[in-house]
Amino acid sequence: MIKAGIVGGTGYTGVELLRLLATHPDVTVSCITSRSEAGLPVADLYPNLRGHYDLAFSEPDVETLKSCDLVFFATPHGVAMRMVPELVSAGVRIVDLSADFRLKDLSVWADWYGMPHESGEWAEKAVYGLPEVARDAIRDAQLVANPGCYPTAIQLGFLPLLESGLVDPSRLIADAKSGASGAGRQGKIGMLHGEIGESFKAYGASGHRHLPEIRQGLSAIAQADVEVTFVPHLVPMIRGIEATLYAELKNPADFERLQTLFEERFRDEPFVDVMPQGSHPETRSVRGANHCRMALHRQEDSNIVIVSSVIDNLVKGAAGQAVQNMNIMFKLDETQGLSAPAFLP
Amino acid sequence: MIKAGIVGGTGYTGVELLRLLATHPDVTVSCITSRSEAGLPVADLYPNLRGHYDLAFSEPDVETLKSCDLVFFATPHGVAMRMVPELVSAGVRIVDLSADFRLKDLSVWADWYGMPHESGEWAEKAVYGLPEVARDAIRDAQLVANPGCYPTAIQLGFLPLLESGLVDPSRLIADAKSGASGAGRQGKIGMLHGEIGESFKAYGASGHRHLPEIRQGLSAIAQADVEVTFVPHLVPMIRGIEATLYAELKNPADFERLQTLFEERFRDEPFVDVMPQGSHPETRSVRGANHCRMALHRQEDSNIVIVSSVIDNLVKGAAGQAVQNMNIMFKLDETQGLSAPAFLP
Amino acid sequence: MIKAGIVGGTGYTGVELLRLLATHPDVTVSCITSRSEAGLPVADLYPNLRGHYDLAFSEPDVETLKSCDLVFFATPHGVAMRMVPELVSAGVRIVDLSADFRLKDLSVWADWYGMPHESGEWAEKAVYGLPEVARDAIRDAQLVANPGCYPTAIQLGFLPLLESGLVDPSRLIADAKSGASGAGRQGKIGMLHGEIGESFKAYGASGHRHLPEIRQGLSAIAQADVEVTFVPHLVPMIRGIEATLYAELKNPADFERLQTLFEERFRDEPFVDVMPQGSHPETRSVRGANHCRMALHRQEDSNIVIVSSVIDNLVKGAAGQAVQNMNIMFKLDETQGLSAPAFLP
Amino acid sequence: MIKAGIVGGTGYTGVELLRLLATHPDVTVSCITSRSEAGLPVADLYPNLRGHYDLAFSEPDVETLKSCDLVFFATPHGVAMRMVPELVSAGVRIVDLSADFRLKDLSVWADWYGMPHESGEWAEKAVYGLPEVARDAIRDAQLVANPGCYPTAIQLGFLPLLESGLVDPSRLIADAKSGASGAGRQGKIGMLHGEIGESFKAYGASGHRHLPEIRQGLSAIAQADVEVTFVPHLVPMIRGIEATLYAELKNPADFERLQTLFEERFRDEPFVDVMPQGSHPETRSVRGANHCRMALHRQEDSNIVIVSSVIDNLVKGAAGQAVQNMNIMFKLDETQGLSAPAFLP
Repeated sequence: MIKAGIVGGTGYTGVELLRLLATHPDVTVSCITSRSEAGLPVADLYPNLRGHYDLAFSEPDVETLKSCDLVFFATPHGVAMRMVPELVSAGVRIVDLSADFRLKDLSVWADWYGMPHESGEWAEKAVYGLPEVARDAIRDAQLVANPGCYPTAIQLGFLPLLESGLVDPSRLIADAKSGASGAGRQGKIGMLHGEIGESFKAYGASGHRHLPEIRQGLSAIAQADVEVTFVPHLVPMIRGIEATLYAELKNPADFERLQTLFEERFRDEPFVDVMPQGSHPETRSVRGANHCRMALHRQEDSNIVIVSSVIDNLVKGAAGQAVQNMNIMFKLDETQGLSAPAFLP
Repeated sequence: MIKAGIVGGTGYTGVELLRLLATHPDVTVSCITSRSEAGLPVADLYPNLRGHYDLAFSEPDVETLKSCDLVFFATPHGVAMRMVPELVSAGVRIVDLSADFRLKDLSVWADWYGMPHESGEWAEKAVYGLPEVARDAIRDAQLVANPGCYPTAIQLGFLPLLESGLVDPSRLIADAKSGASGAGRQGKIGMLHGEIGESFKAYGASGHRHLPEIRQGLSAIAQADVEVTFVPHLVPMIRGIEATLYAELKNPADFERLQTLFEERFRDEPFVDVMPQGSHPETRSVRGANHCRMALHRQEDSNIVIVSSVIDNLVKGAAGQAVQNMNIMFKLDETQGLSAPAFLP
Repeated sequence: MIKAGIVGGTGYTGVELLRLLATHPDVTVSCITSRSEAGLPVADLYPNLRGHYDLAFSEPDVETLKSCDLVFFATPHGVAMRMVPELVSAGVRIVDLSADFRLKDLSVWADWYGMPHESGEWAEKAVYGLPEVARDAIRDAQLVANPGCYPTAIQLGFLPLLESGLVDPSRLIADAKSGASGAGRQGKIGMLHGEIGESFKAYGASGHRHLPEIRQGLSAIAQADVEVTFVPHLVPMIRGIEATLYAELKNPADFERLQTLFEERFRDEPFVDVMPQGSHPETRSVRGANHCRMALHRQEDSNIVIVSSVIDNLVKGAAGQAVQNMNIMFKLDETQGLSAPAFLP
Repeated sequence: MIKAGIVGGTGYTGVELLRLLATHPDVTVSCITSRSEAGLPVADLYPNLRGHYDLAFSEPDVETLKSCDLVFFATPHGVAMRMVPELVSAGVRIVDLSADFRLKDLSVWADWYGMPHESGEWAEKAVYGLPEVARDAIRDAQLVANPGCYPTAIQLGFLPLLESGLVDPSRLIADAKSGASGAGRQGKIGMLHGEIGESFKAYGASGHRHLPEIRQGLSAIAQADVEVTFVPHLVPMIRGIEATLYAELKNPADFERLQTLFEERFRDEPFVDVMPQGSHPETRSVRGANHCRMALHRQEDSNIVIVSSVIDNLVKGAAGQAVQNMNIMFKLDETQGLSAPAFLP
């Protein structure tokens, strides 16, 4: 039985980890910390957990965390980078759901997150935890940087196109849309139901923190610098990301090969589902599940290939992928605790 | 391994049965019928089931159904009453999620459903499947009439009040609210997102089909005729029912005893959660789960006791309760396949 | 041209006043105050107003407000009671949309609002601004206390029943449901889209601030003490209130007279629409409009009369009623600026 | 007073025309036809219109329509092309909100709409009614083809870029998102609240009927063949379109000139609002209003210019633009009946 701790458990990522781990047969959550809610039973904050956990939030305490086999960080950026070095030195393995260890270029990190990075050593050693790209490295990692939600949907969708070299890596567009839970559980006026419940907008269109992560990931996949334009949008729903991806085929005739290429690339992936060409994946088809579903399109004889890719931002885009990474790290069946179908309607 | 069949599987109740049974370790779904969709793989209609079921919808065929241990009916009213007699004669056990066998007075049934009842014998033998009231009878039943969604939330909330005789049974009010999935998956203009997505209304305020079912159930519990006013409302959400119940205490001082009364009544019930007095149960706290959560209130020294009771209409109000009934009928752990936490946010 | 000021204009009531007054031919908004947003153009906060107002928020300044003919208070409770005396002394007329002057019993006010009332004189002189009850007094009022949203929907629905004496005033139940804008525009976690976007719950079931206002209003109408139970609920939509009202007929046969009674009572009311008996008013049918629509029901031969009453909480429940009161106070056509149809779909 | 008729008034476009015309001082609606609802008062179908119209739907009758000064067609495709020739011969002026007269190439029309076009003469004579492009022609037109919703948002956003020749016309991408009212008011399962209320997806990604209209319009603006990829998406809200447009600057340095270019291009347009560079227009900022709001972005030093453009699909994307066209055709103030602010929150 893996003894797991969660640092920063009051947000949506925290409660989603608790939901998924409640039915995981090989894990027990031994502590969950929150500075602001210390002492409060988790089931008082999240009544869906009544009857599932007796646990209360506790003050973050490094000694307690050291007794865990694995610690998940579900904190704002800047927290994990300060606590991780001591924990890993004590032999604790880490899955960090925050952005602290996702970028390799620390000056880029500092620019986007507005503070210097304090753990260069571990930023270098951290494994970027996209299992479809880095499963072997994840298996042996001490520290896994769990990918962001948008970067997960976007990298998986572009993956076969860039690996195969069939598209122009300097002309990538990712138009992505997310439900409101992606903004977290904080009392911001801009995220009130009264503000966004019946409206749609782009945001971060001049630059969003996930842009450098996407660029780094796609460049690694393409083994070349890519140029990617990424515009996120806010959808009046709670969960789900859809990314519509546009790439230019070097040879338009190659479009005919793409469906097979995608299916073969993901054949052995338990959580990537390539739907028949021309399908339109719905976010609800992955709601609550760890799957990424995608489908290919093109319009008439255009040289533009279109990929629509959907995930649940809180599952494959956060807590589910973290559990998947844990399963890999601890040599469990990769789908353990993640096998329930998505939640529809 | 229980071999289960589903008749009428294209609606929301059908897909919810499939979702729940996908992770149930003791059941295999051997057939699912649909006249309109025969031949179509279920995963083509419901993409959340891709990878979980290879099954396709088939024409309803009595011989095939006879090979099942259990058949769920998820059909419009009027279907089960015609097919059940032959199946039970063949030894198949039945959980009917439709309204066909819920009412004991067949003239009342005929009035509300607009057709004569065709199976008086089985209407009499059917066990009304509210486990919190009739667990023993369900265990041995050949045919279980699975309760309606509103009647489940309302009967559970009034249960301790009527059993204890502390309230006036002639002055009960049930003001209930449901998400849109309660209306089923049919192409009605009135249920379009464009019509109801940002609106709220009462419906059936002069009389709804669940009224006689509620009255019959509450009268049985009270062992006396009750008078109950029931007004349903349509909420712009997909799942969930909240019922606010009003009853008049014969002796206002008895209010102080109610919290304990409720807690004791439901102490051994795996799916009824009495929250602390003064709580406000949210429908999302039971979304996707088989729980009914409830809480008690009164205003100043009023003699009116208020109960707020929530369920997921598709789970405890339909497919989940059907699985619970199946578990009881087949002497399984009652929570088998129903132990995942609700889905929040 | 009436010169109007608005104190506390950043909330939903403030922007709704601006929306309605933008097309009102007889009013000009000369100042709108906000401590927190002073200096910011209103159209920067509310882009729907781009092109309609050049005005910026200003610091609240009594001297500037004294130059207005009318001042609307759209402030939290406790603000108007401190500023009103000086303004009325200067001859300014006031429509207070806050709760400060709604209750006549100041000890009750102090209990519910958690502070002593500081303007007993004006609390007594204030006219409770429900035009359907107090039109003549409003016409000459210096200070109008604009009714709360729930109290408006509930009082109008009970009005003919209580005036006529046909129902038992000691057994009234008001089960009311509101969209999220009723909670105002503040960064509360509990009002995030992620929290309430796909959920329904009761709140304040043990006592809500609108209860004493409702009780005071209904008692005045009934000319007797009433006992009323009031439970509000939160609907995952932005605007709209539906109140389902239950009352016990002294003589059940009187139900047949009620439709005519209601129609006659409201025949000359420009903003109350009695729909045909058995109708189900939708909140969207009044969205953006100053109307209250209602309809009558009963179930079989019950002695319970059911009234479903809908308003837009920001219009007839706040800003629209304030404009209606202003129209009455300044002897304008009562529908001036309020004649656009509701917004559907 | 202009005497207007509406053919096909039961859909969302029809009720929106009625809502807007209810407050238009220069128009009276003398007839509204519907085959399916003939005889039904419009206010029975649309309760928001109670008190505003006494009119009932009537059978479509050419003689009655001939007595109108103007007829709006709010019909499915294929209807207007059969009725228009006789009406225009009788001197009636037409604004056709359907797709019948939008495309000049009738073989393209036949391909996308699955039937031969029956009125080649009037397809040629029809003026494509985008006032920002064709105001003078509209003024004198007998027949105006009112643009589609997506084409309106997309053409306005690309307009200054293509007119100025600053971008590559062979690499245009329009990623557009629409609320559910765009699919009309028909009982389709796929548009139920239960299906789409909490989900997001692309649709028509391999080709949508608005693609040839967009291509025709952009090519006319660019005075060259354009290549445009257009992917529509369905947003779980009722009204609103947001289009995120991507174009490649021939010279990246030109980006600095674009804000001024856009502001100047639309300076005299009453319904196009260029927001400050870097803004994110929200669909709610135009809900119920005839405005198109847009803003410019680019990411770091990219050569991709991003335009986010929002409209209300039922107003500027349908009924509002039809009223605007009518105002132009009858030499009224272009904003007559269209001056109310958008509806927020």
